[in-house]
Formats: sequence, C-alpha cells, structure tokens
Amino acid sequence: MNYRILAKVLGLLLLLLSVSMAACGLFAGLDVVAGDHEAMVALFTSAGVTFLAGTILIFVGLGKIEKIPRREGVVIVGLGWVLSAVFGSLPYLLCPPHLGWSGAVFEAASGFTTTGSTVITDLEKWPRGLLLWRAVSQWLGGIGILVLFVAVLSYLGVGSKSLFRNESSFQSGEASTARIRDTAMTLLKIYFVISIVCVIGLRACGLSWYNAVSHSMTAVSTGGFSPHNASIGYYSGWGNGWAIELWISVIMLICSLNFLIFAVVVRKRWDRVREQNDVRWFIGICVVVSLGIGIGLSLDDRYSIGFVQALRESWFIVVSIASTTGFGATDYELWPAWCKALLAILMVVGGCSGSTAGGMKVNRLVVFLKSSAHEIIRAFRPNQVFRLVVNGNPIDETARARTTSFVALYLLIIALGAVVVGMLEAGQGIDLETCLAAVLATLSNIGPGFADLGPTENFSDLRDPTLTFLAGLMILGRLELFAILVLFVPAAWRRY
Amino acid sequence: MNYRILAKVLGLLLLLLSVSMAACGLFAGLDVVAGDHEAMVALFTSAGVTFLAGTILIFVGLGKIEKIPRREGVVIVGLGWVLSAVFGSLPYLLCPPHLGWSGAVFEAASGFTTTGSTVITDLEKWPRGLLLWRAVSQWLGGIGILVLFVAVLSYLGVGSKSLFRNESSFQSGEASTARIRDTAMTLLKIYFVISIVCVIGLRACGLSWYNAVSHSMTAVSTGGFSPHNASIGYYSGWGNGWAIELWISVIMLICSLNFLIFAVVVRKRWDRVREQNDVRWFIGICVVVSLGIGIGLSLDDRYSIGFVQALRESWFIVVSIASTTGFGATDYELWPAWCKALLAILMVVGGCSGSTAGGMKVNRLVVFLKSSAHEIIRAFRPNQVFRLVVNGNPIDETARARTTSFVALYLLIIALGAVVVGMLEAGQGIDLETCLAAVLATLSNIGPGFADLGPTENFSDLRDPTLTFLAGLMILGRLELFAILVLFVPAAWRRY
Ligand SMILES: [K+]
Ligand SMILES: [K+]
Repeated sequence: MNYRILAKVLGLLLLLLSVSMAACGLFAGLDVVAGDHEAMVALFTSAGVTFLAGTILIFVGLGKIEKIPRREGVVIVGLGWVLSAVFGSLPYLLCPPHLGWSGAVFEAASGFTTTGSTVITDLEKWPRGLLLWRAVSQWLGGIGILVLFVAVLSYLGVGSKSLFRNESSFQSGEASTARIRDTAMTLLKIYFVISIVCVIGLRACGLSWYNAVSHSMTAVSTGGFSPHNASIGYYSGWGNGWAIELWISVIMLICSLNFLIFAVVVRKRWDRVREQNDVRWFIGICVVVSLGIGIGLSLDDRYSIGFVQALRESWFIVVSIASTTGFGATDYELWPAWCKALLAILMVVGGCSGSTAGGMKVNRLVVFLKSSAHEIIRAFRPNQVFRLVVNGNPIDETARARTTSFVALYLLIIALGAVVVGMLEAGQGIDLETCLAAVLATLSNIGPGFADLGPTENFSDLRDPTLTFLAGLMILGRLELFAILVLFVPAAWRRY
Repeated sequence: MNYRILAKVLGLLLLLLSVSMAACGLFAGLDVVAGDHEAMVALFTSAGVTFLAGTILIFVGLGKIEKIPRREGVVIVGLGWVLSAVFGSLPYLLCPPHLGWSGAVFEAASGFTTTGSTVITDLEKWPRGLLLWRAVSQWLGGIGILVLFVAVLSYLGVGSKSLFRNESSFQSGEASTARIRDTAMTLLKIYFVISIVCVIGLRACGLSWYNAVSHSMTAVSTGGFSPHNASIGYYSGWGNGWAIELWISVIMLICSLNFLIFAVVVRKRWDRVREQNDVRWFIGICVVVSLGIGIGLSLDDRYSIGFVQALRESWFIVVSIASTTGFGATDYELWPAWCKALLAILMVVGGCSGSTAGGMKVNRLVVFLKSSAHEIIRAFRPNQVFRLVVNGNPIDETARARTTSFVALYLLIIALGAVVVGMLEAGQGIDLETCLAAVLATLSNIGPGFADLGPTENFSDLRDPTLTFLAGLMILGRLELFAILVLFVPAAWRRY
C-alpha cells in the first residue's frame, strides 16, 4: 500500500472541506438572524481542525502523483467518504442545539452521500449558517459522486461506455489521471451549470436567495435536505407552489440522467442520445408510475382530490423518490399500500449511472430485464442466440452475469440489512416495515422511508449503533457495493 | 399444437384425481363422525364429474404417445395445475359449510401446489372426510412436483445433474418418456417410503391413524395443511409434544433435500453425496438460523422462556418455514422484527431442487452467492479466471447468468406481486407488510405469512380477485416461473 498517495489525496479532500466550512462560517457571520454567531464559531472551529488535519496529511504525502493504482483507489474512495463524514460532523457537534456523536456522523454521512435522511427533529431551531453547511455537504457529495463515477464506477457499471466514446479512452482497462481529470471536468461543468440554472429558476419563483441556493444545492445533488421541516411542502400553500414543485421536479429528473448525455446533446449527436436505453426507461418509469398513482388516488374515495391535484402530488413524489432525492411535499405514508410498494420499487431502482442519483441504477435494471426476457425464451428454445445491446454497448455473458449478480446482491443486502437493523433495535418495538425502510432509505440514498421513518418522521428515535450502521449503508450504496465489499473478501487482497 | 397429446395426458390426470376423491368419499362413508355423510356425497359427486371430464378428454386424445414435445409439455404442466385446482375445488363448493368459488379454487390450488395457505376460518367445523381430501390434494401435489422436476425443471435448475449421472441420460437436452419414467419412479418410490416411515413415527407418538396419515401426507409434500386449527401446536400440550415436533421437523427437513440423494446414499456413493453443496447449505442454514433465533429469544426480556424451550420453538418454526411446509406451533408473529426478517429470507430461499419444497431453491442461492463473491474479486482483479462448481457440476457463464437472472426475477415478482395485491385490496385498509406476506407465502409455497396473514390468521379476509391472483402465484412459484412466464413472452412462441 502506498500511504503517500493516500495521505496526499485525502489531505486535499480535507482542505476542500475546510474551505467549504469556512465559507459557511463566513455566511453565518454576515447573516443577521439570531443564533448565527454560535454557528459561525462552530463552523470556523471545525474548519480549523479540518484544515490542520488536511495539512498534516498533505505534508506526509508530499511528492508528485503520476497514477493512482487500483488498490489505493479503492481505499481512497472508501476512506474519503468516511473521513468526510467524521470531519463533516464537527459543526453539528459544536453548534447548539448540538447533536450527539452518532447523530452528527449520521447527519454528515447523510449529507456527503446525498442521502438526506436526518436525525434533526426541528430544523427551524437550528441556525441558518449550519443548515447551509448541511446543504453544502450534499452539493460537495454530488461532486464526489461524479468524480467517483468517472474514476471507478464506470468500469463496474454497464452501458456507460457509449457515451464515453471519443470522450476519453474509457475503452481501456486503466485510465490515466489526466484522462480522468478531463472527463470529470466535463461532468462537473454540467453540474455547475445545472446548479446555477436551478437557482435562477427558484429565484424567479420568489424564493429568497438563501432558500433558492439551499434547495438548488440539494436538488442537483439529488440529496433532498431542506431548511424547512415541511421540506418542499413549505411552498404548497403559495400561489405558485405548483410552479416551484414543477421546477424542482424537472431539476431532479435531469440530475438523475447520465450527465454525459448533456455533453452529447450540446454537440447534437442525436444518434448517440437515441442509443441511451436507460434515459428513456427512467423517464418512462417516472411518467407511467406517476400517472398510475395519480389515477389511483383520484379514484380512491378516501382521497377526495381531483385528478389534477392527484397528478401534481404523485408526479412530485414519484420524481423525488425515483431520482433518489427524497424531497417531501405530500405525506405518501397516507397513500394506499400499492402506491407505497411502487415507491419502494422506485427506491431500489434509483436513477441512471453517471448522475448524482443513488439506487442500483436503471442501466442495471435494463440489462437485467432484457437478460431475463432472453432467459425465459432460451429455456424453451435452447439454440437461440441473443445479442443484448444496452446504451449502444453489446453486453457479453460476463457483463450480464455481473449485472444480474449486482441486482440480486443489492436485494440480498437490503434483506440482510433489515435483519441487522431489527437486531440492533431489538427491544425497542421496531416493526418489520420500519427495518426494511431504514435500509432502503439509506442504501439507495433516498432519505425518507416508510412507517416510523416515513416522510413526516425522522431517524432520531434510532439507537447509536443503528445510526452508525445506517451511515455505513449510505456509503456502501454510494460506492455501489463493490468498492467496500471487496474489503471483506480476503481473496481480493491476495497477490497484490 | 398437438391437442391430442394435451387431451390424453390431462385426461389421465383427471382420472387420477377422480379416483383419489372417490377414496376420500369412501373414507367419509365408513367414518362414524357426524357430518361425514354430506362429505361423502360431495366427494362422490366431485369424483363423478371429474371422472366424466377425464374420460371425455382421454377419448379425444386416443392413440399412443411416443414423446411429448417442449411446447406441449409447457402447456400440460401449466394446465395440469390449473385443472387440478378447478376440479379439486368441487368438494369445497359442494360440501357444507361450503366455500365460495374463489375460496374453493384458492384452497384447491393451495393443496395441489403444496402451499398450505387456507381461507377456512374454523377447520373443526368441516367433516373429516373433506379435510382428508385437503391433505390428499397436497400429497398428490408432491407427486406432481417430483414428476415435473424430472420432466422439465431439472433442465432449468442448476447443479442437479451430478446426481442424475448414470441415473438416466440427463446430460442430453431432450429426455425420452421412458427415461423420464425411470427417474420419476425412483423419486416416487423414495416419496412413498418416507410417507410410510412418517406415518409409523407419528403412530408411535400416539397420534390416531387419521391424524398420523393426514399430517404425514402434508409433511412429506411440505404442504403444511393440518386438520387442527392450531396446526402442530395442537400437540404442544402433550407430554411427548417435543417428540412429535422433532419427528415432523426431521421429515420436513428430509423432504427439502434433493430426493435423488437418498438413492445415492442407498448405493453408498459417498463421494457424490459429499459433492452436494446445496444439501450442506440447507442444513447449515437451518441449524445456524434456529440457533440464532433461539439464543435471541432466550435473551429477550419480553419472552421469558429458557434456552431449551426457545430452541425447541425456533427449530420447529425455522425448519417448517425453510422447508416451505408452514406447519405452525409457535406464533412467530410475536417474535422480534429481526427474527421475522430472517424467516422472510428463508421463505424466499426455500429448499433444494428435486424435493417437494418451494421457494427459489438453495441451489440457486449457492450459485448466486459464489458468483457474487467472484464478481467482487473480479472487479479488482479483472484478469482472474474463476471456475464455479456447484453440486459437482461446473457452472458456465450462461448458467451463471441464467441463475442470477432467476434470483433477481424472483425478487422482482415478489415486489410487483405486492403492488398487485395492494391494488386488488385497495380500500380494504391492507398494509404493506401484508401485501408482501401474501406474495411471499404463496409464490414460495409456504402457507402462512406475516401481519394480517400470520400463522394464527388466514386468507379469508381477502377479496375474490386477490385470492385468484394468489392462486396463480402459487402455480407460478411451483413451476419455478419459467413455464408460465414464457406464455407472456410472445417471442418464445414465434417460429414454433
Ligand atoms: K437523497
Ligand atoms: K407449504
């Protein structure tokens, strides 16, 4: 293991965090609302500690890095999120009304992984500067996810290569740091542009600068933190509440598509856009499910709302869940069980690879479904040869097995995770649905879940070990399983 | 489509059903308990109708059958279970206290698929002759499953071939009817022997002939119907209640292993026995999970039972669920959520291929887990070549992809099934856990589920369309998905 590389990269990460904390501290100092002085002190203190730690690490790792080997890459990716959660928790620990250590780490992990689950029971009691840090952590997390995707996940993912064609040399097994930098910069430019466009739209809808920026940062990162207890439901009463919901839903939808598609769109390569099955599937799923739930709700006697209102409510929730953002507007916990079951499926599926969205990714769903259809046919026509193409890439048997393995493994982890949550909460009267919801909400980086973790609830009733376990699941989900799981498979380390 | 073959085989099936019904009618006539006269009339009437239908079909299909082509095989397998459910429902319709048509079909399907879910709220109100028919339907279902396995499923399954080696020519793609008959006869002989051994054991424990035979027929078929409302819990108060539970648990465990392993054991081919990963895995899972739950329950303050009692309760329930029998002794609905989550996982997994057990089968779990471990390693060591061996058979990439597809598809059907159940029950106040439980209990052919479908509850509160849908899921689960799903994939029918 080359510890110098580790120290240098992680040190740079901590410096970035430190600067961001200081920026939030500056906002808290300039802000006029009461309580922000304490927030400023907490944020500057945290920035100082983080800066110190980062500087030490960089000092340890002095020297030029040509190339990050696989093994070091895996460790950096895993440790990067863990360190972010640990140092990012400092402001929550230091600033009144204070969170406990496990709650603070949970909240920070929930931020950097863009999960958006919270242990804070009353957001309006917290200073605005600290809530800004909360939103910034998600926005930074979004950057981390895009860089991670370019550097690692695109090798594991399926069907992302066609967009990368000519973009950079993603056909080869290893990518040089220079190539990674180029592609990552393209994605980040798109991320910044969407962020700014989102802020402008929300300002136009009448939100204050603070609220517009806060919600934009958590919308483009599909994080879902909001400074309001009622989340986006805060604006439901506004005359243009529908416009705010619509605008945010469009941003959430866009940020769940493979970001490189926008680069391709700008260059008017329509042939390549047309190849992207996952984008079509994702939008199709959102439209069909929200229509279905909208019709169902408007026909149900217990929800005396018209079709238009039902569609408005279902569209926002469906996009919010499918994009793994988790913004709330309607309490879907009151919806019939079949709507909740559909939402649970959306939670598992998530968005497209190459976006900030979580979940197991639509690409994998497409490969899995196409592959299953082939299997069913092949069971009765054994000599049939199939060619499986997803996003313009032919999927060979190995990639097919890998993808379906991923899908099944993802579901297995959800089931086993529910067992662990139930064990950790044994004696607290937790029910099965809440156990499952806790895992779904965190592993797929959604935020809210079901039952006792529904959209109007929060994670504050869970015990410390459970919160730490769920924080781990957030990171596991963000790394798309493999990067962390490999640490537990001894054979993977042999002969390195 | 060769309708002659269809008519002949299905006609023979109906004749078999008719004879079985008449036998139960004879028992009802000879039995001394009140109310059995009506049962006799109902059973003889049903037998007559079924005999008539069977004779007509055989008359239509006169002629010698050399070989059943694939396409006809699929239709026979699917229609066989549907026809059994339809004609098998007649006694429930005709005999007081009567079931409605959907309830009767559900009960009959639950019998022939060896699911064991029931819509009967008070079994003790029904005549013994009819409850015997209920048990016989499961025992016949067990025969059907074994024949089906030999004829069709062993091609779809994974890792069953090593036991078949020298047994019959299962290496080739097509099997002649003669070969199928040989292997099927071996399995059925084992089935009969275990049935008789089970009856002898239960008689030795002091059960009446009627109860011993009833419970034996539903134990060896892993069906789980009992003539008692309290199921096996009826015997908990007996002095040798533990011996009855232990004996039944051993039978359930044995009947969840690949039946051909007993043929191999008799011939003392220990090398082949040792190759069987799935058998080792299945027994290991039962031991580990029941130990875990036993320890958990004895440590939990809310269950003031000693370790021995806790282990007795957990062992019986774990084996009952893992073997997909569904006999009840303890109300596991009162257990902590993590125990229920573990039981839910056992429900999905089920027993070994080549047994009467349901679920997605341990063989597939083993392939999936081994394959996932390989994937995780391969993600970081791309040049590593793996050789995957399960039950002595090398698993190639195609079999691997097929198996993991199956696992993921199985889980997808559970999720989508829950949505459908929720939709069909919309407005009845059904919760998410009950929706999921309904699908799990029926698709995996378990019997009891969770929440409103827990071990002390039944399916009588569900609406007619829901019951019909769940009856369909039982058959889908029994056919291990492919045989029915193929009907919905148009491409599978093309060019036949
Ligand atoms: K989120
Ligand atoms: K059963």
